Amino acid sequence: MAHTQGTVYQATWGKRDTQLILPTNSSLSVTLSQDHLRSLTTARCITDARPDARDRLWLNGDEEEIKEGGRTARCLEEMRALRRKVESSDPSLPPLSTHPLHIASENNFPTAAGLASSASGLSALIATLARLYALDDAHGVSTSDLSRIARQGSGSACRSMFGGYVAWEQGERADGLDSVAVEVAPASHWPDLHALILVVSDKKKGTPSTAGMQRTVATSALLEHRIKHVVPARMERISRAILARDFDAFAQETMADSNQFHAVCLDTAPPIFYLNDTSRAIMQLVAELNRASGRALAAYTYDAGPNAVLYVQEKDVRTVLDVVLRYFPQTRASFPDPFGTGASPTGESQVGIEGFNEGVIPRHEEGAVARVIHTKVGDGPRTLDSDKEGLLDASGMPKSLRA
Amino acid sequence: MAHTQGTVYQATWGKRDTQLILPTNSSLSVTLSQDHLRSLTTARCITDARPDARDRLWLNGDEEEIKEGGRTARCLEEMRALRRKVESSDPSLPPLSTHPLHIASENNFPTAAGLASSASGLSALIATLARLYALDDAHGVSTSDLSRIARQGSGSACRSMFGGYVAWEQGERADGLDSVAVEVAPASHWPDLHALILVVSDKKKGTPSTAGMQRTVATSALLEHRIKHVVPARMERISRAILARDFDAFAQETMADSNQFHAVCLDTAPPIFYLNDTSRAIMQLVAELNRASGRALAAYTYDAGPNAVLYVQEKDVRTVLDVVLRYFPQTRASFPDPFGTGASPTGESQVGIEGFNEGVIPRHEEGAVARVIHTKVGDGPRTLDSDKEGLLDASGMPKSLRA
Repeated sequence: MAHTQGTVYQATWGKRDTQLILPTNSSLSVTLSQDHLRSLTTARCITDARPDARDRLWLNGDEEEIKEGGRTARCLEEMRALRRKVESSDPSLPPLSTHPLHIASENNFPTAAGLASSASGLSALIATLARLYALDDAHGVSTSDLSRIARQGSGSACRSMFGGYVAWEQGERADGLDSVAVEVAPASHWPDLHALILVVSDKKKGTPSTAGMQRTVATSALLEHRIKHVVPARMERISRAILARDFDAFAQETMADSNQFHAVCLDTAPPIFYLNDTSRAIMQLVAELNRASGRALAAYTYDAGPNAVLYVQEKDVRTVLDVVLRYFPQTRASFPDPFGTGASPTGESQVGIEGFNEGVIPRHEEGAVARVIHTKVGDGPRTLDSDKEGLLDASGMPKSLRA
Repeated sequence: MAHTQGTVYQATWGKRDTQLILPTNSSLSVTLSQDHLRSLTTARCITDARPDARDRLWLNGDEEEIKEGGRTARCLEEMRALRRKVESSDPSLPPLSTHPLHIASENNFPTAAGLASSASGLSALIATLARLYALDDAHGVSTSDLSRIARQGSGSACRSMFGGYVAWEQGERADGLDSVAVEVAPASHWPDLHALILVVSDKKKGTPSTAGMQRTVATSALLEHRIKHVVPARMERISRAILARDFDAFAQETMADSNQFHAVCLDTAPPIFYLNDTSRAIMQLVAELNRASGRALAAYTYDAGPNAVLYVQEKDVRTVLDVVLRYFPQTRASFPDPFGTGASPTGESQVGIEGFNEGVIPRHEEGAVARVIHTKVGDGPRTLDSDKEGLLDASGMPKSLRA
């Protein structure tokens, strides 16, 4: 099971219920390709009768405690409950819900650095268990049903259950049954949307998302206005832009929403900062690039961290890369050019846009942006070959432990 | 004539009329002492009949053109009109309104670096001309009347016509006649309010205030909510806090309003940034200082620039200075300690507050904060001895030109 996601725009800040993870407003995201960023998860039922058998979890090779009453435990419980229902309606099925689970998961990108690692990891967990437990349409379980469970593990994980362009409907019920993800459009509808992730810092965030959200809900005088009067219309507009493949409208809404998300973070007491000087220089560069071009060449969005995600249409990727690499030079290692664009990582290329103000920001030193990850819109969870790519051996222990 | 001001809190962003400089909301400021930051202005009527005599202006020693129809010209015109009215009602007065004016003005702090230099300079100009023209209560002209004219030169200059704690009532009339400054309390009401100005950058601002304001009015979805639903109640609360000398309430409102002002700047397309990483580190330091102390020791506020103004009660000045200088070390030249607190400029002092998290921000290098200006709440415009301190000689030319 492999999965990852990139948020198009940040409308999930603030939770109306922190236990169930119910958001204060709907939101929308783009799922990014697993060819470049992914969580790889393997789950096995431990069916032999070891006396000490219990649910166990390994993240990136290290065992993690599954805290009783915690989010992971709750997700396992919900998935088992669904499986029990399926088993009771079809007694021929093996009683997998009665066995302990061993789960191993690995991200190929840094955790807790604002790259949506928990959304990716949790959605991969749910998708993996759904596959193991055969919880699918044939057994009366939809992807939106699964997204409801993923949501309780890590809010935005619900969106990552789908590929392509995904909405998280906030829902209205106190029990959260209607707070689920739905597909706006599959990746194939608008396949030429690329994403450049400018990794500004790999350091752990100062403010964990959950604590930040609660402070904003408690103290921001602007958040409620944003939720009630700005986001609903924006959800409509951005969905329409996606359906019409209208990049200009998509870019305008994406950037405005990212700006406003960080504005309400700043309108928090004490204020929450995710953007740093490098983040802001990237925003200024994109604004100048779009101004000089007379149309949107790129759209930035910032999650709860300093990293930029730039959305770019395929036809403009080389132009935008040339500009990005000119102002934030990379090495071949930090920009391996996976799509073979031929852009010079050290930024020798000139900006070939008439009227572009070269002095809009300084050319930064190597390392100001640690890495440039080039990826694009991608599909949803994939099932892989467990024998070849699985992380657990036949006994249910991580293969990495044998090394 | 000498004058300066420091804004307590930023509620003047956005103009409902850019010609008359009518703000979208009321606001409040603290006038800072002229002992440390001031504009010194001298004006003379040129009464001899030189054929080429005309209005002339020297700023910091260099002559500046008085553009026809510009803000300075408009202020001179309005002051002359007031003088004409006074002359017509008392024909014994000399016809000063008929003579050209020579004006020289000097700030003892950098212009356009977010230190409210234009507010200070314009209010000094109006106060100087009022003195020259005898436009005072005895002649039926109040300080609020003068503030209306200062407002047309540089919006926030209207507040600087008063000392102490000053409100700028937005007014409702289209002609702006009711958009004037009024005294909330004189400096003597709450005299122990000190201000530490942390000069983060002396460079010219990226976005001039006026252009920034218009972009925010045009594009921010949050500004209107702030104006209509947040600022009016805050004006009430902050005025009450000043009248009650309640520093905790004053600090909370001041910081929340500064945060929200910069939030709506960020909610602008393209976004406007005034705070940089150093500005934000100062905010985090103040938040930690207040948290660990269990009460507000300092309140930050940021104008349209990266410089911090920290308000501190006299009893806490040494404690706050020790912390500021520990994290942002100075030299004796950049922190001359005008109040003789004895704080070490190089930050050797320990933070003597139990539970203070020393790692809240890194200790910065010398120069991250270029200067620490220590001042306090002060009085309004002062009349000085022209012979000794005036900038123009008897012929009306700048004394500096003779050197």
